[in-house]
Amino acid sequence: MSDPSPDAAILAAWLRNATPWEAAVREQRIESRRLVTDQAIVAAVKAVAPCRVLDLGCGEGWLARALIAEGMTVTGVDAVPELVEAARRHGDGAFHVVAYEQLAAGVPGAPFDAVVCNFSLLGEQSVEQVFAALPALLVPGGHCIVQTLHPLIACGDAPYRDGWREGSWAGIDGDFKEAAPWYFRTLESWVGLFMRHGLTLEVLREPLHPATQRPAAIILIAVRSENLIY
Amino acid sequence: MSDPSPDAAILAAWLRNATPWEAAVREQRIESRRLVTDQAIVAAVKAVAPCRVLDLGCGEGWLARALIAEGMTVTGVDAVPELVEAARRHGDGAFHVVAYEQLAAGVPGAPFDAVVCNFSLLGEQSVEQVFAALPALLVPGGHCIVQTLHPLIACGDAPYRDGWREGSWAGIDGDFKEAAPWYFRTLESWVGLFMRHGLTLEVLREPLHPATQRPAAIILIAVRSENLIY
Repeated sequence: MSDPSPDAAILAAWLRNATPWEAAVREQRIESRRLVTDQAIVAAVKAVAPCRVLDLGCGEGWLARALIAEGMTVTGVDAVPELVEAARRHGDGAFHVVAYEQLAAGVPGAPFDAVVCNFSLLGEQSVEQVFAALPALLVPGGHCIVQTLHPLIACGDAPYRDGWREGSWAGIDGDFKEAAPWYFRTLESWVGLFMRHGLTLEVLREPLHPATQRPAAIILIAVRSENLIY
Repeated sequence: MSDPSPDAAILAAWLRNATPWEAAVREQRIESRRLVTDQAIVAAVKAVAPCRVLDLGCGEGWLARALIAEGMTVTGVDAVPELVEAARRHGDGAFHVVAYEQLAAGVPGAPFDAVVCNFSLLGEQSVEQVFAALPALLVPGGHCIVQTLHPLIACGDAPYRDGWREGSWAGIDGDFKEAAPWYFRTLESWVGLFMRHGLTLEVLREPLHPATQRPAAIILIAVRSENLIY
């Protein structure tokens, strides 16, 4: 048998790390999330004032719960059954096991006013599949909100080019097993991904880490064009 | 008398450094321009296929000449009379002495299909004045193309926040006098500047320096919305 594709390796890594991940998120062990990015993504979603939200790659569901507390109706999907079960256990909201390649076939409750992806777009082909499905998941004028690693910060010493990178659980306490690779995208590549799929960038945010005074992440807010070209 | 504003200090610095600057550009002494950013800005303008172009902050006119060679009709404006005279001396094209605060009053030949600003947006209030004038300078559907220092690269060790920074001529041979301060903007701030002025970002480019494998600059291409909100 040949090695699985890097995209399949990402899912395999989440399947084998679901338990320690759920604990790390629930116990707020990730400093940058606790100090910066959790509140930044909630504020970004609130900024577009959606009624019905899809939390795409919802994990154990903390963001869905936070958005429900703000009065939104939230559906969460994730490819990892153990995390979806945890989300159902810990709060309200409709949670479904849906792999990214299944999104194009539809999600219960679609279309949504907003689709939010919080550090959940880690692959190459799988992310293309998400973006290809977005027009069907969003109402016209609906928003897509992505928070991800800031390319210029996450690049490290490697050349600044799209490509697969080795993953790591460094900085997160827990009984983690082998990490997945992840697909690095330049800022040019991220912006191009939105444009190619009929999404117009409206806002770009760079939430600052108070200790480093550098962006802890990047948030892109885009709107589905009313008149899609394709 | 009080000190001049930082924005006024920028213009004063260009007035006193016009002669060595003209020589540095004409003799291609700036490596990043020679290797990367000159061809990147020409390619970016060609990508939107404009007929009539305004080269805003044209300096000694190299870009105007390059765009004329591509078949475009080019008007160049700059606040520094010595540089405008050099531009007139070295090539075709209509060149005018216009300070940024005068742009809103109009430019001969306006409106244009594209306005290009190549490393010419260095101030705080003066840049706001440029953006406020853009809707009057561009046809509906016209493009604004800005090449500038890449915020994440140019930030250095200072906090990643908008603010005035000390300038320097480091890396450029020539008989330069005191450099001007410049106003650092985060990426979030740059993108917000476009959005606030009715310009929709279409493309973001990060031309790579072949030696460092890091972006040598950032290029933002935005379109004037057909239906301005304000």
